[in-house]
Amino acid sequence: VMDGAPPPTSPTGLSAYVAVSQLLGLTLLATTGAWLGRYRGGVAWNSPLQFNAHPLCMVLSMVFLQGDALLVYRVFRHEAKRSTKALHALLHGLALVIALVGILAVFESHRTKGIPDMYSLHSWCGMATFVLYLLQWFLGCGFFLFPGASFSLRGWYKPQHIFFGIALFILSITSCLLGITEILLFKISDSYSHFVPEGILANTLGVLLVAFGLVVGYMLTREEWKRPPLAEELALSMDFKTLTEGESPGGGS
Amino acid sequence: VMDGAPPPTSPTGLSAYVAVSQLLGLTLLATTGAWLGRYRGGVAWNSPLQFNAHPLCMVLSMVFLQGDALLVYRVFRHEAKRSTKALHALLHGLALVIALVGILAVFESHRTKGIPDMYSLHSWCGMATFVLYLLQWFLGCGFFLFPGASFSLRGWYKPQHIFFGIALFILSITSCLLGITEILLFKISDSYSHFVPEGILANTLGVLLVAFGLVVGYMLTREEWKRPPLAEELALSMDFKTLTEGESPGGGS
Repeated sequence: VMDGAPPPTSPTGLSAYVAVSQLLGLTLLATTGAWLGRYRGGVAWNSPLQFNAHPLCMVLSMVFLQGDALLVYRVFRHEAKRSTKALHALLHGLALVIALVGILAVFESHRTKGIPDMYSLHSWCGMATFVLYLLQWFLGCGFFLFPGASFSLRGWYKPQHIFFGIALFILSITSCLLGITEILLFKISDSYSHFVPEGILANTLGVLLVAFGLVVGYMLTREEWKRPPLAEELALSMDFKTLTEGESPGGGS
Repeated sequence: VMDGAPPPTSPTGLSAYVAVSQLLGLTLLATTGAWLGRYRGGVAWNSPLQFNAHPLCMVLSMVFLQGDALLVYRVFRHEAKRSTKALHALLHGLALVIALVGILAVFESHRTKGIPDMYSLHSWCGMATFVLYLLQWFLGCGFFLFPGASFSLRGWYKPQHIFFGIALFILSITSCLLGITEILLFKISDSYSHFVPEGILANTLGVLLVAFGLVVGYMLTREEWKRPPLAEELALSMDFKTLTEGESPGGGS
């Protein structure tokens, strides 16, 4: 920021939405922990409780961290694009590692208990989401972080990256809801229909997941909240454009 | 179209996506019918098969018809806005009626069999989606079909209507996936993990629902495929704007 220039401001309402989204995200994690701790015996590795690491890791990584990774361009709107991109890739990378641990937990738990893998709709949706999420991360790094991709190639890929990024975030939440329903019907199928506290708590977790998705989705798609290019980025992209179009920087039409 | 003017064309690729979306939608309905007919005894009212009317009605109304209602502005891009709006409202209205029949089917079936209502995450998500969908329909009619709403009020509501319209479409598909998982775990919990044909078929229905949502979502959010205003609409909206802003039609600045 130049001396004397007014400090950059955020659009009205955005800060409130950021606060609500983070509160919802933390409530999400607390509710998952409360469910697993109070009704499912807690979380531990190398024990019959290993399965419980699965829901905890998946909600933390594929919902909370993935959601926050999508929001960085809205929240850090006045930082250099380079740093914001790095944070975006880093948060998604962290999410991928934690999700992998969560997936290992369910496969190892199945192996110990002799339960078959990958037969349910939850497992099909969840696995497809994870594999595509990994692919999207590699493509994102290749197109936007490494200097090889041309300006026009990046311009072509960017809308696809944004569409599939939001779609994978929604599919992650959907997979969580399917997983909650599976656990409840496996574990409390006899008492679920009597409105027992565990059923209400887990349903509430599902509603919170939907609410988090709605708030993040609203923030991402609101036109006025998109990150405006900084002055120096505009100048740079003009240079690139004229370079790729083979025109002299001063030339018209 | 004026004499001598070239016939209006659609953007490249849009027609192919329209065809794929409709093929997917019909495959969706056929797969639902095949599942219910082949493995669940078929569909009938006033019989123990009454429940089966529920999935059939909900997929037809809340997925296929709702999806097509969202697409009318892309497909009929050169028709008068008035007619396209009317079709949009009509398709949503038809979806609401069929969805209501599907909801009655499950409540009546529960009453006959003595099963409690509204305890599962599927019922919470599904009912919330239906009630909000009904509300959105009334709001849409009030703001856009009846002549009372001012130009600026419509302009404020339109982005909200679009965001919540797409969100409700996604929530409808999510509710269907939860419903499929419930049916499978209620009816074939013992054989589901052995990859029996019914499980594979119902999982495939889930994947088709996701694919339909992705194709429709892609068509709706692609910037170049948005319906361009017709020449006469542009002129009209200019008139409205100058009227509401209290300027003379010829005034500058």
